[in-house]
Amino acid sequence: LPPLSWRKGKVTMSCKRSYLASINEDVKAHLKHAIPVREPLAVYEPMHYLTFAAPWNTAPALCVAACELVGGHRSLALPAASALHLMYAASYTHDNLPLQESCRPKSTIHHEYGPNIELLTGDSILPFGLEVLAKSDDPAQNISGRILRVVVEITRSVGSQGMIYGQYLEIESIQSNGCGSCHVEEIERVCEKYEGSLYACAATCGAIMGGGSEEEIEKMRRYGLYVGKIQGMTNRIKGNDKDLVKLVEEMRGLAIKELEGFDEAKVEAFSSFLR
Amino acid sequence: LPPLSWRKGKVTMSCKRSYLASINEDVKAHLKHAIPVREPLAVYEPMHYLTFAAPWNTAPALCVAACELVGGHRSLALPAASALHLMYAASYTHDNLPLQESCRPKSTIHHEYGPNIELLTGDSILPFGLEVLAKSDDPAQNISGRILRVVVEITRSVGSQGMIYGQYLEIESIQSNGCGSCHVEEIERVCEKYEGSLYACAATCGAIMGGGSEEEIEKMRRYGLYVGKIQGMTNRIKGNDKDLVKLVEEMRGLAIKELEGFDEAKVEAFSSFLR
Repeated sequence: LPPLSWRKGKVTMSCKRSYLASINEDVKAHLKHAIPVREPLAVYEPMHYLTFAAPWNTAPALCVAACELVGGHRSLALPAASALHLMYAASYTHDNLPLQESCRPKSTIHHEYGPNIELLTGDSILPFGLEVLAKSDDPAQNISGRILRVVVEITRSVGSQGMIYGQYLEIESIQSNGCGSCHVEEIERVCEKYEGSLYACAATCGAIMGGGSEEEIEKMRRYGLYVGKIQGMTNRIKGNDKDLVKLVEEMRGLAIKELEGFDEAKVEAFSSFLR
Repeated sequence: LPPLSWRKGKVTMSCKRSYLASINEDVKAHLKHAIPVREPLAVYEPMHYLTFAAPWNTAPALCVAACELVGGHRSLALPAASALHLMYAASYTHDNLPLQESCRPKSTIHHEYGPNIELLTGDSILPFGLEVLAKSDDPAQNISGRILRVVVEITRSVGSQGMIYGQYLEIESIQSNGCGSCHVEEIERVCEKYEGSLYACAATCGAIMGGGSEEEIEKMRRYGLYVGKIQGMTNRIKGNDKDLVKLVEEMRGLAIKELEGFDEAKVEAFSSFLR
């Protein structure tokens, strides 16, 4: 059978698209409001530029969707969703920094600013994301505990056991193989740690902010991990690698299983993350 | 009159030293416990190394002292104090990164790891510091609100309005002057944003965690700002610049004024930060 989303015809598909699109619009609006271009311009302009120069991914949207899936109001998840894009933008900026004696293939992206400014800007985007999140605390809502839990989730997922570890593994595999010859298993390990950590964190944080049960939170964590691995692997392996196609198909199946027990009408939109 | 600490004779001085020494020992023990050398070693070893390779400064100690000054228990401030050293270590690591086309004078420090690993490790130390802090939340103690406030203080002070801004100003002044010819005013601006932000944040966070009043918190913020500026300026300007000596003497006086109204016995130890 073709994936669920392909069997539904135009109406549902455009509905799903507009659900995702409406989330993305809200996250971008939240981000733009959070990073005004203000004094000192020398600092805020590159921050603004590099935040929006990083490719948009669906992790922030997954965070918001997970919050709504467990019954939370969208506004509860927007600061965490913005923080997730900022974490990714910081990582993307540093990933493309021209370093002396770098073992990595020379990046071909356009550099609007010099390396010093890009280094510092990456360094400022990360804490800024956590500031946006921590500042969203509202004593009247009694959600400080949830926000702190989300801070721990995010700092862990971007750190040494998550995205950073994925980047280490990638450098290691480039150094030992050159890049053409990586095995699917190696790429899977990198994606599990990099995109996997990011998306698992996104879904987890959404479920936490939405007030999900521990079981719901852990289901979302596993669902996000599959989504991240699928996204990472299909982005990294171009062409029709048979092992990859098979692995991704298996992961899609496992991901869909994690959605069992949730509200079916809401689950519908989640198939867009698995494409 | 010579500074207070010089008028007191040996006994009091050695007391003060051991108060500071005991705080530093406690912060270092907390840090060592927080960063075990564990798997993946490729990630944790450089993190451990670069955390302790960064010069030790007195900002973490000021955080703990401020907490005790307002009547809080030392243990309340240790996670924030550890986070402050980690923020500084991350900044120090990136500050000494060899970048292509860098306008800064080539760093002469020893590099144990390659630039990719140092970049990633700096990137992992910063979120790790905030994780250590956020994880210290204990629902039984009802301090989530305080910790979130401290997260906001720290992310702000290391970010675009604080330390990063100081680093921008420094790059700007190196680009326009070369470094020999900086004016005291320029150096003061850099130090206000860099060391000033770090120490102001340290004292503020200590007072918040210790349960200080808003007035006490703001006094500590101003005291820390003076301490940071003094530390930064005396480190950066070697020799006996007359303007500097005068400026530092004025700032010492202003700093001491902020301590009025606090417990005199506890205030005694604070003169060590002004040296």
